Amino acid sequence: MLVHKQILHLPEPFRTEGGVLLHRPQVVYEAYGRPDGPVILITHGGLSDQHAAGRYCDEDPAPGWWDELIGPGKPFDTERYRILCMNALGSMYGTTSPSTMNPETGCRYGPQFPEITMVDMARYQKAFLDAVGVEELWLVAGPGMGAMLGLQLAALYPESVGAVVAVAGVGRTPPGAIATHHFIINTLRMDPQFQAGWYDLGRPLLAMKTVHQFLRINSVNEDLLKTAIWDAVQDGPEAQCQRSRAIDRYLTATVDVDVRDRDPNCYIALLEAINSYDLGGQADSYEEGVLRIQCPVLLISIDTDADYSLQWAEELADILNTRSPGQAQLALVDSPWGHLGCIKECEQMSEPIRKFVAEL
Amino acid sequence: MLVHKQILHLPEPFRTEGGVLLHRPQVVYEAYGRPDGPVILITHGGLSDQHAAGRYCDEDPAPGWWDELIGPGKPFDTERYRILCMNALGSMYGTTSPSTMNPETGCRYGPQFPEITMVDMARYQKAFLDAVGVEELWLVAGPGMGAMLGLQLAALYPESVGAVVAVAGVGRTPPGAIATHHFIINTLRMDPQFQAGWYDLGRPLLAMKTVHQFLRINSVNEDLLKTAIWDAVQDGPEAQCQRSRAIDRYLTATVDVDVRDRDPNCYIALLEAINSYDLGGQADSYEEGVLRIQCPVLLISIDTDADYSLQWAEELADILNTRSPGQAQLALVDSPWGHLGCIKECEQMSEPIRKFVAEL
Repeated sequence: MLVHKQILHLPEPFRTEGGVLLHRPQVVYEAYGRPDGPVILITHGGLSDQHAAGRYCDEDPAPGWWDELIGPGKPFDTERYRILCMNALGSMYGTTSPSTMNPETGCRYGPQFPEITMVDMARYQKAFLDAVGVEELWLVAGPGMGAMLGLQLAALYPESVGAVVAVAGVGRTPPGAIATHHFIINTLRMDPQFQAGWYDLGRPLLAMKTVHQFLRINSVNEDLLKTAIWDAVQDGPEAQCQRSRAIDRYLTATVDVDVRDRDPNCYIALLEAINSYDLGGQADSYEEGVLRIQCPVLLISIDTDADYSLQWAEELADILNTRSPGQAQLALVDSPWGHLGCIKECEQMSEPIRKFVAEL
Repeated sequence: MLVHKQILHLPEPFRTEGGVLLHRPQVVYEAYGRPDGPVILITHGGLSDQHAAGRYCDEDPAPGWWDELIGPGKPFDTERYRILCMNALGSMYGTTSPSTMNPETGCRYGPQFPEITMVDMARYQKAFLDAVGVEELWLVAGPGMGAMLGLQLAALYPESVGAVVAVAGVGRTPPGAIATHHFIINTLRMDPQFQAGWYDLGRPLLAMKTVHQFLRINSVNEDLLKTAIWDAVQDGPEAQCQRSRAIDRYLTATVDVDVRDRDPNCYIALLEAINSYDLGGQADSYEEGVLRIQCPVLLISIDTDADYSLQWAEELADILNTRSPGQAQLALVDSPWGHLGCIKECEQMSEPIRKFVAEL
């Protein structure tokens, strides 16, 4: 499937929850599938982008991040549905964010980008959908931050969202995830080259390399290291030193490339938005906030995801099912990939997603 | 119990496995209990020191790190045993290490301190015991790095070690722990102020603050954050932001104080020693190395310790028990503290330790 990136300017300035106006707001997005089909909105993970499926050209070495799930005959079937995926507000891949130009100053927003919330991001998604003439979402689906954005959309616009598939995402950010995010934010801000957010964009912060090594530790389960690296070395006098060097290489490999063109201000903007995410944040209680969701919900948890563990998905499902038995379904995926399982384990997710979609 | 720190110079230079001579090697240690009793050697954790029990003066705000286990009538009973605890080779609390003066240059060793291994550290312990006239250890016990040092001692000197209590330590460093340690080492080395190990000792590296925030995330289980911080905030519109701020305070509180006077070169020296630790490292196989241990072993695992999980203790126990049924015993401690449970959960450890000691 060949796809291309599109850009759209929203017709109106966007006002954040904090009251700041973003002028000439822009959205980078991709569209797949049958133009007149019911609409599926795909929402991406925190460090990801709008390129959910397909390739940009025949030589493109890798397809989009959920390509196994999106395409002809796949669980999100492009022969039946119109599928949209936009880069989220605050994300560094072209949608209005700390990386983009502030039309009022002619310079990038940088640290002057306003504080945003997941509610802002959901409202921004809605403004995009309005701009492209989509009134109703047949379904919204995404991993990680995208899962939470889908739930937030369903809670904010219950009349417009037909169903949610939330992979490795829950109704409010759990404490372990908050700690992880603060660690990343603090690490970036402590770098002397960070310069209160006015760093030199062409020269990646050393702290970004630290953060990306951390993300690698944080996302993998010991079993993965054991199977992929440890077991490849035969026991013997030099074995442990070889294993240690191999694990270090795993931690550092491609980090220099990974951090190129990444914008730390965008990491901070999104992580802070995620840290304040709470479906109960606009209600008197968490339960009341969750119960604004009226549509069927499929929650898929990754068994090794320490930051978004099953118990938080269960809590959310219980609230919905206590009111409306069967509204929420839960599926558990086995993975050595921790939170990253949400994009690595498409094969395992296919079955519960197909079943959920078939029943809608 | 009032105790005091002592210093001793080993009579001979110490030669590392790598062949480097350390001149005028010194040991900082403490001794408790009955001078003519059987000897218990306590071995400390990686970031810890020789102050295992007691207070230095009546006003001392906190006792040693295993004070609940060591004292009159306690599991390691000072009324019955002579108890010794020395600061390990390479550790930054006074024993010869990157922090101490190289008598050949008159300057601190700094990054010129030789590479050391756990075998070196065990041989250095033995040299200390020889110097204070101890030929036989009735028992050796320790948490974390100390647990592994105890096992290494028992494997190297089976005729001199009567029993081992190893808390949160195993027979070779598991892959997850190796990754954690490399992350810390890489973070320290990447700091521009690190200057290849010739940093200004009086000005803590920013990377040390990053490392200590990381240690805090890495050691606690989500349940601890939930119980101690999250649940203290009532649900409602502002709850999630309050929780997020409280978790950030938890991550950063006291870090400035924690890193004061810490020496990054010592962290690196010990972490590299731990990464290469493998009881099979001087044998043809791991099994063969482990089977050099002849004495009874009590292995205590912490249920939430991701880096040194129960399976690695089981592997070690199985090897010993297959040859000599009952040689190794296993106990599991419930704790929200992860690896830190090895010093936080003394009450739970007391029972299995008392039982093990009584049967010797």
